[in-house]
Amino acid sequence: MNSEIFVFDTTLRDGTQGEGISLSADDKLKIARKLDTLGVHYIEGGNPGSNSKDIEFFKRVQDYNLNAKITAFGSTRRKNSIAEQDVNLQRLIDSGARAATLVGKSWDFHVHTALQTTLEENLAMIFDSFAYLKRQGMEAIYDAEHFFDGFKHNPEYALAALKKAEEAGADWIVLCDTNGGTLPHEIQEIVAKVKSELNTPVGIHTHNDCELAVANTLAAVHAGARQIQGTINGYGERCGNANLCSIIPNLQLKMNYNCISGEQLKQLTAVARYVSEIANAHMPVGQPYVGQAAFAHKGGIHVSAIMKDSKTYEHIEPERVGNKQRILVSELAGQSNIISKAAELGLDIDTSQEHTRAIIDKIKDLEHQGYQFEGADASLELLLRDAFGGAKEIFTLESFKMIVERNAGSMMSEAIVKINVDGQTVYTAAEGNGPVNALDNALRKALVQFYPGIMDIVLSDYKVRVIDEKDATAAKVRVLIESTDFHNTWSTVGVSGNIIDASWEALVDSIRYALLNTEKQEASDPVNRGHLGLVNH
Amino acid sequence: MNSEIFVFDTTLRDGTQGEGISLSADDKLKIARKLDTLGVHYIEGGNPGSNSKDIEFFKRVQDYNLNAKITAFGSTRRKNSIAEQDVNLQRLIDSGARAATLVGKSWDFHVHTALQTTLEENLAMIFDSFAYLKRQGMEAIYDAEHFFDGFKHNPEYALAALKKAEEAGADWIVLCDTNGGTLPHEIQEIVAKVKSELNTPVGIHTHNDCELAVANTLAAVHAGARQIQGTINGYGERCGNANLCSIIPNLQLKMNYNCISGEQLKQLTAVARYVSEIANAHMPVGQPYVGQAAFAHKGGIHVSAIMKDSKTYEHIEPERVGNKQRILVSELAGQSNIISKAAELGLDIDTSQEHTRAIIDKIKDLEHQGYQFEGADASLELLLRDAFGGAKEIFTLESFKMIVERNAGSMMSEAIVKINVDGQTVYTAAEGNGPVNALDNALRKALVQFYPGIMDIVLSDYKVRVIDEKDATAAKVRVLIESTDFHNTWSTVGVSGNIIDASWEALVDSIRYALLNTEKQEASDPVNRGHLGLVNH
Repeated sequence: MNSEIFVFDTTLRDGTQGEGISLSADDKLKIARKLDTLGVHYIEGGNPGSNSKDIEFFKRVQDYNLNAKITAFGSTRRKNSIAEQDVNLQRLIDSGARAATLVGKSWDFHVHTALQTTLEENLAMIFDSFAYLKRQGMEAIYDAEHFFDGFKHNPEYALAALKKAEEAGADWIVLCDTNGGTLPHEIQEIVAKVKSELNTPVGIHTHNDCELAVANTLAAVHAGARQIQGTINGYGERCGNANLCSIIPNLQLKMNYNCISGEQLKQLTAVARYVSEIANAHMPVGQPYVGQAAFAHKGGIHVSAIMKDSKTYEHIEPERVGNKQRILVSELAGQSNIISKAAELGLDIDTSQEHTRAIIDKIKDLEHQGYQFEGADASLELLLRDAFGGAKEIFTLESFKMIVERNAGSMMSEAIVKINVDGQTVYTAAEGNGPVNALDNALRKALVQFYPGIMDIVLSDYKVRVIDEKDATAAKVRVLIESTDFHNTWSTVGVSGNIIDASWEALVDSIRYALLNTEKQEASDPVNRGHLGLVNH
Repeated sequence: MNSEIFVFDTTLRDGTQGEGISLSADDKLKIARKLDTLGVHYIEGGNPGSNSKDIEFFKRVQDYNLNAKITAFGSTRRKNSIAEQDVNLQRLIDSGARAATLVGKSWDFHVHTALQTTLEENLAMIFDSFAYLKRQGMEAIYDAEHFFDGFKHNPEYALAALKKAEEAGADWIVLCDTNGGTLPHEIQEIVAKVKSELNTPVGIHTHNDCELAVANTLAAVHAGARQIQGTINGYGERCGNANLCSIIPNLQLKMNYNCISGEQLKQLTAVARYVSEIANAHMPVGQPYVGQAAFAHKGGIHVSAIMKDSKTYEHIEPERVGNKQRILVSELAGQSNIISKAAELGLDIDTSQEHTRAIIDKIKDLEHQGYQFEGADASLELLLRDAFGGAKEIFTLESFKMIVERNAGSMMSEAIVKINVDGQTVYTAAEGNGPVNALDNALRKALVQFYPGIMDIVLSDYKVRVIDEKDATAAKVRVLIESTDFHNTWSTVGVSGNIIDASWEALVDSIRYALLNTEKQEASDPVNRGHLGLVNH
């Protein structure tokens, strides 16, 4: 095992500079708690000098007794002033955080252009600010903004800025590639040079403008940096900050550094997905290590090799980061995909080639129409069960009608459904917040007398995607619905030129899937009558 | 200037292994044409041995007279057979492509596990296949699958596989990090070693499983590789292939290699966005170099520095890759963001601090409700024009009603609207493919007598996002609408608990924006009465 690396998470501060990322104080508290279970060493909560939301966060987080050090962010004192009288420094001290990060200039160009002061005054700003924080007993971290650009233009001045912070007692000197424009071999060279000039431990803070933030962080660690700054999922301004979800497993599983424990590492995927949900930011399916497709296999040849031995196409065991292998069904699929998917679903399928070919052709055809089963496992299971036998219809639709009405100030959505269950016609209506909600309510209301447990199912996600964007409101849409009974979660798909119709299709699949699976469970376990408590008449 | 690098694009082949990526023969032809304008040297079109769609592509692309070499993909001959009788090799030759890439094994583990043959037979498969292709006069490229893993486990065998291809006359030896698990320093070391053992030029093919595909490609070039394989936007299986949109500018602007011309490089952003549209794949806003946020600035301090000098927070001039700077409006915004956005929009605003603060507060409040103006410039312009004076109401809504009805086989969507234009009430109805389309049709029908040109506006994109995903069909949704008059494109936003209401709001903004901008244009240019031909009564 190599030396220990300190993980500094700035999701709550630099991460919120990302386009579309906005976190309330509550959101920040939820995320801080999750980061703590992951075992990061520092959680930078925000900038108490810039807004009241962050002051609230720092106050409330003290009750959580987290293991991580909560860190507040600010700048060195204003030019031509006194540290003791600097309002923003005072807010850092008052925040209750045990550690503070101060950003300061180290690039002479920025001192002139952005700060509009002298090189000497900037050095004094650094010295005074760190000396003051240390006198207050805080751990103090220097974020040397634009350090690599500064070093390339004027190495003497860039180093002088770092030495000022060291002289004033800074606990860490963090080298920032603020504009994200530096290459790995440059990072490695410059960090090594800095290491030889300082006694203070060094950290690294990179941005992803060249798609090199992860590589740059690894290069810095290679050259002796021992603190890594980054964000969950790489959130951050422009192209984002360095992505801790990739850096931590790279350092730990491939370079033998010690960041967090092996058990904590198994939380990585869950934490990444949780943060993406709280931040309401779409997570790329292909995100390394933690994405849904990170260990997904699509090509027929790959799948047949994977079934022989996972190592053939997987660089690590997905479980080590809490992720798992998935077999995708797609038009590139060979029969082996379908067979392994059916096996994964526990379906007793007939593997005669002709039969399997027929279902592959059906899936291909549906995909051409716009369906996608990669994200809709439950609809795929229904399709396979229909093909290989064993799935019965729950009800048939006679008609539905959906009305949305808006007058001066009021909105109303109502749905009327007429369905047939085991020869009995049910005709009912319900209101909702919106059309899909009204339809969902009406359908459950019609079915509840037959399946009382149906009210325990909740739709947990609803996504709409326009398939052919050329002719927008007249185009086809694909609706994905995720449902949960609080034990399991499943996804279904619907496609139509009409969003209401596509939603209906996905809704029906969701309910059918839940009822069929409960039946299956009841059959195999007659004592425990299914966690949904469904009674099938 | 350093040496020349050959760009090998495999978007149409390896890119389509990505989750959710599926391209028809038509799509492939469109993309090939675009790739050619970008100046890539090789376009790998697909696998003519695996499906008829690819055979069609290779046939039709011959009429395009592209500068790039069209390349077909296949495998070395099957085990225990004769190259001349191999159906898949024959399809490569018959495809009409000038070059062929053959994938072959170089990792002993894969020879045993996946191929299930002997090490000797695998070497014979490589030799026979390349010798045959060369006798047919084709350029032949060896993709050494899993080369780096193979080299780490058994360097002698891995090198022996490469030497067999060289011996048989292969024109390029491409080293593949198929599982994406190798680190940059390993890549650099191993490529250097290979270079010292071979005379054939070497290429590099990496995957992004460790978020290191770009860095790994740069490391290989550093060690002497002269062909780079990758895909536009990094599409590809699992975490994707190496992203050419980042690699090309890194090599060209930062490492002084020569990949494509400076003029071609300016096409990069347009090509990336075009391919993402054809592939119908969401492009991350933060994608390096070509993303919408790659040169977007949000933090107030950053924005004020950027306004002094762009170099302060930009690592290159965005125009060099065909992208541009953007100033985002958000709750982190200082007043400078709003002022510069207003200036960008050409609004004559009152910059008195109090007034600007009021509009910032209004934007913050709307953002808390779920609005996002980063992607809805036209709604933001309306908001600013309303705040700073100068925007009049086009009409007021009295009521609308929307009905969707489904019977056995048929679907019907109709909308009824009642609006007031300059004191006159208009009451009308229309049908549509779906509810939003019906509403759009009814609204235009009501307005057309006042603004005849309104029929020329087309909705070109429609996106729906659930804002609070916890309570799915009852949650708030945000609708983004993109509209075009074939001269300009603009985006608007609507938020509501009801998808129909949110769509209505975005629709109204879109039409209001179009009519106000036409008026503005007419006022400044009375001869040219607006390209929309709108007449305002």
